[in-house]
Amino acid sequence: MTLFAKHQPTLNQAVKALHDRVFYAAFPENPSPAVYGETADADGKAKFSALCGNKFTDLQQSGEDGWAGQEESPYLQEALRISYPTFNVPKLIDRSTKAFHLWRKVSVDDRAGMLMESLERMKSRFFEIAYATMHTTGQGYMMAFQASGPHAADRALEAIAAGYEELGRFPSSVVWDKPMGKFNIQLKKEWRAVPKGISVVVGCSTFPTWNSVTGIYGSLMTGNSVIVKPHPGAILPIAIVVAEIQKVLVENNLDPNVCQLAVDTFDKMITKELAEHPDVKLIDFTGNSAFGSYLEGIVGKSVFTEKTGVNSVILDSAEDIDKVAANLAFSVNLYSGQMCTAPQNFYISRNGINTPAGNVSFDQFAQKFVENLNSLVDNPKAGPFVLGAIQNKKTKERVTESEGLAGKVWLKSRAFENPMFKNARLTTPVVVEVDAAKKEIFSKELFGPIALLIKTNDTDQSIALAKEMAMKHGAISCGAYTTDPVVREKIADEMSLAATPVSFNLTGGIYMNQNAAFSDFHVTGGNPSGNASFTNPEYVTRRFTWVGHREPVGK
Amino acid sequence: MTLFAKHQPTLNQAVKALHDRVFYAAFPENPSPAVYGETADADGKAKFSALCGNKFTDLQQSGEDGWAGQEESPYLQEALRISYPTFNVPKLIDRSTKAFHLWRKVSVDDRAGMLMESLERMKSRFFEIAYATMHTTGQGYMMAFQASGPHAADRALEAIAAGYEELGRFPSSVVWDKPMGKFNIQLKKEWRAVPKGISVVVGCSTFPTWNSVTGIYGSLMTGNSVIVKPHPGAILPIAIVVAEIQKVLVENNLDPNVCQLAVDTFDKMITKELAEHPDVKLIDFTGNSAFGSYLEGIVGKSVFTEKTGVNSVILDSAEDIDKVAANLAFSVNLYSGQMCTAPQNFYISRNGINTPAGNVSFDQFAQKFVENLNSLVDNPKAGPFVLGAIQNKKTKERVTESEGLAGKVWLKSRAFENPMFKNARLTTPVVVEVDAAKKEIFSKELFGPIALLIKTNDTDQSIALAKEMAMKHGAISCGAYTTDPVVREKIADEMSLAATPVSFNLTGGIYMNQNAAFSDFHVTGGNPSGNASFTNPEYVTRRFTWVGHREPVGK
Repeated sequence: MTLFAKHQPTLNQAVKALHDRVFYAAFPENPSPAVYGETADADGKAKFSALCGNKFTDLQQSGEDGWAGQEESPYLQEALRISYPTFNVPKLIDRSTKAFHLWRKVSVDDRAGMLMESLERMKSRFFEIAYATMHTTGQGYMMAFQASGPHAADRALEAIAAGYEELGRFPSSVVWDKPMGKFNIQLKKEWRAVPKGISVVVGCSTFPTWNSVTGIYGSLMTGNSVIVKPHPGAILPIAIVVAEIQKVLVENNLDPNVCQLAVDTFDKMITKELAEHPDVKLIDFTGNSAFGSYLEGIVGKSVFTEKTGVNSVILDSAEDIDKVAANLAFSVNLYSGQMCTAPQNFYISRNGINTPAGNVSFDQFAQKFVENLNSLVDNPKAGPFVLGAIQNKKTKERVTESEGLAGKVWLKSRAFENPMFKNARLTTPVVVEVDAAKKEIFSKELFGPIALLIKTNDTDQSIALAKEMAMKHGAISCGAYTTDPVVREKIADEMSLAATPVSFNLTGGIYMNQNAAFSDFHVTGGNPSGNASFTNPEYVTRRFTWVGHREPVGK
Repeated sequence: MTLFAKHQPTLNQAVKALHDRVFYAAFPENPSPAVYGETADADGKAKFSALCGNKFTDLQQSGEDGWAGQEESPYLQEALRISYPTFNVPKLIDRSTKAFHLWRKVSVDDRAGMLMESLERMKSRFFEIAYATMHTTGQGYMMAFQASGPHAADRALEAIAAGYEELGRFPSSVVWDKPMGKFNIQLKKEWRAVPKGISVVVGCSTFPTWNSVTGIYGSLMTGNSVIVKPHPGAILPIAIVVAEIQKVLVENNLDPNVCQLAVDTFDKMITKELAEHPDVKLIDFTGNSAFGSYLEGIVGKSVFTEKTGVNSVILDSAEDIDKVAANLAFSVNLYSGQMCTAPQNFYISRNGINTPAGNVSFDQFAQKFVENLNSLVDNPKAGPFVLGAIQNKKTKERVTESEGLAGKVWLKSRAFENPMFKNARLTTPVVVEVDAAKKEIFSKELFGPIALLIKTNDTDQSIALAKEMAMKHGAISCGAYTTDPVVREKIADEMSLAATPVSFNLTGGIYMNQNAAFSDFHVTGGNPSGNASFTNPEYVTRRFTWVGHREPVGK
């Protein structure tokens, strides 16, 4: 049985799910022994530990220039001492070019089969990837497992499915038979989906697999060769994925350089040299807006970005304000606000929030919100796991600095300890009240657990500000609470124009931060937070070109 | 019956044709009385004559700043003296913004119905449009009728069909039901296809409707308001189309400013002011590479360009060299080489062209080619009609200048008269032999009837040069002649990598210049000749954004 035949049922389901947009998950998100086996967790942990302090020899790339690696665990605040082979850019490009011309001639079905097989192999290493993710990004265990493992694999599968479908969207050949009156002109026409060339996928420090696999698999599925350039602070999780892709390639007698890992170090980054190389035609990037916009501006490339945004919550009215405060407190605490979908700007009218139990004043809500943040932080069974650790020192500094913003500080960051990791880099959320007039304060992303409670004149102003921020500075998510259908539609319509998805009235175990594969378009591509979306048709069609040739029939 | 119901059968056929890519034409290309009526041609001619020298009052736009128009007939070399209402850019933008918010709320079906109805109205004016096209572009009568009438309407219908299909690609809402073990999370998710905003469509002087209607209809179908900015030298053909769109809008109680005509003059062009306006989100452009690249570089816009290219013919071997020479001579003479798909660089090995009748030397082919060019020009029943007239004085100057290129001049441009239009601006083709080493001569577009016969070492060099030109300078078409299947596949593969469609072994009544709606992707978007393609899925998906909102079920 070919790899394609083996994986075809799942691929068909994935294509269907992509279009139906109902719930679908090919990879179970529950890390329980019942699902993944009794020893899976312990084995993964042991394998991760064995990788630390050693050379990462799992890749099938050879002829390296040297070995390097500067990853550091936010939980231990010490180096992982893993080193990876490094390659200069001309060597990477040269190998990628050679591999491209082999890979582009592999059939669509065979590509799909091999890529799906690599996801199966990745699945066997979910726990190892989870620990690698914890100790590079600072994510809590559950998020590290889910986001870097099954959820990432689902997003990769979604990109495979989208590419597979688009590549089959037009016939490979037809007879074009044009009646001309006394005779017909008959042409044999054929169409080729021509991959663009070398694809560079630039990773970020907080979601090293989830944000990179879509570009990697989207480009590979459509026949491009890929160079994966991870963030120097979060290499291991994606290195494991690349190693598994390479092993499947080698097993199928293909050049492992179809998908190369290109490791660099903080003192000598190679991203610009890669991105500006004329043979690089595709660039995927997750990271800061300045660098993302620079990449978007390079002439002659197809660039896919997820940059930063200013996410809003609009509080108009609610059924149960306590559940609202609890839900939003969780969203801010989750991975200490280091998600691209985390809320930052909370717009509340100076007239408060209407509920069936009466009006809740601005101050009353602020108080409830702070209480919920604190009680989650102080819950020893939840706090350390939900908050995780801080990936970057600068995030911690920013949180402290935010206490100096011009406004009432409702909650200060405070000392906090994770009993399992005494030396972890931690911080707790800051909440500051800001007047709606002081736009300069809330017109930018303050990455980390920083919540600004913005006092507006009314919900109309709240909506207008949330929309303006999204249109000018980008937004990846928006939360809204209202019991009024007219207000609901106004928010839905206005935020649509700012290309921002809205989560309405979320309470309980579902949060505005979460975006699901096969259903949620992550980043719409329609505002400055990014120009691409996981996974709309464009996300894959921009990776190849339809070229049609024709010839008279019979020739 | 709604307009949608009226046109639904045609729309369904168009969607199917777009995917099957077999022959399909909704609008007959034959201008015979049997098809369009006994008096259609005479009526159209009379209506065109009546428009000359007058104000064009057919538009439904009011409150103009003034009247202007500088069109000139290449056949008469005198002004048409038609004036159009002019509007300043702030007024155009203001009206377009208001109209956008009305239009975007019109249902997809209603939009489709109205747009298809406008094509029916356009059909009733095909002959008027044909004469308007002749006397602005210089096209011959048959091309003016076909390209500006039925072929343009087919391309418009193709854009409607593509937009219609993509807008319906995902469900408008679903229940997302995620099993969580002891309970399920149920969210109602809804997706909106959100149009980007104001769309500016910038026309060209040679194909004023064919190259503009795709952008106009693609943008309108996906809910954007449109400002049509024609070339100041070729306004009337598209003005008639816009007038018909506006009439259908008004009949359906909609604001005619959903689609405005924005006329300017050579001395005061408004394209830059329009394009750079922050509220303009979409730009379609056909024209020179410098301006097209400037537009592509404006940050924050979705830009669709068709720029210039250097089209090649690769001559390796042939069944019947006389038929080849005749076919290519027609392609160069057709509309005096003023088509974006016209061939310019003819690559021929110094070892000649193999045929079953023996080797045809470089010089022998050059001689045959020149003879065929001359015999077509000198055929009084064909020459004047095929060549048409020269739109722009500079094109005529360029043709004369090309006789001074460094190489043997095989054919000089010469005096030529159109008996129906004694004062027409005419020129005949120039043929120059150029050595393959003199790349600087043939590395740019020489717009007009200029053919360069490039002497190469062998077919491999011919292919390499054609590919290099396409990759560096763009190419919209390529002709190739070979009887060797290995060479054929090499050409097909290499030119695919340069995103250039190849017409193989065309002889008889079909030419490399011709691109058919519903089947040929015109301009692939994959080389510097343009970043968009008529009509691939991206051509419409880039005009709107998928935005998803979600809310717990029952809320």
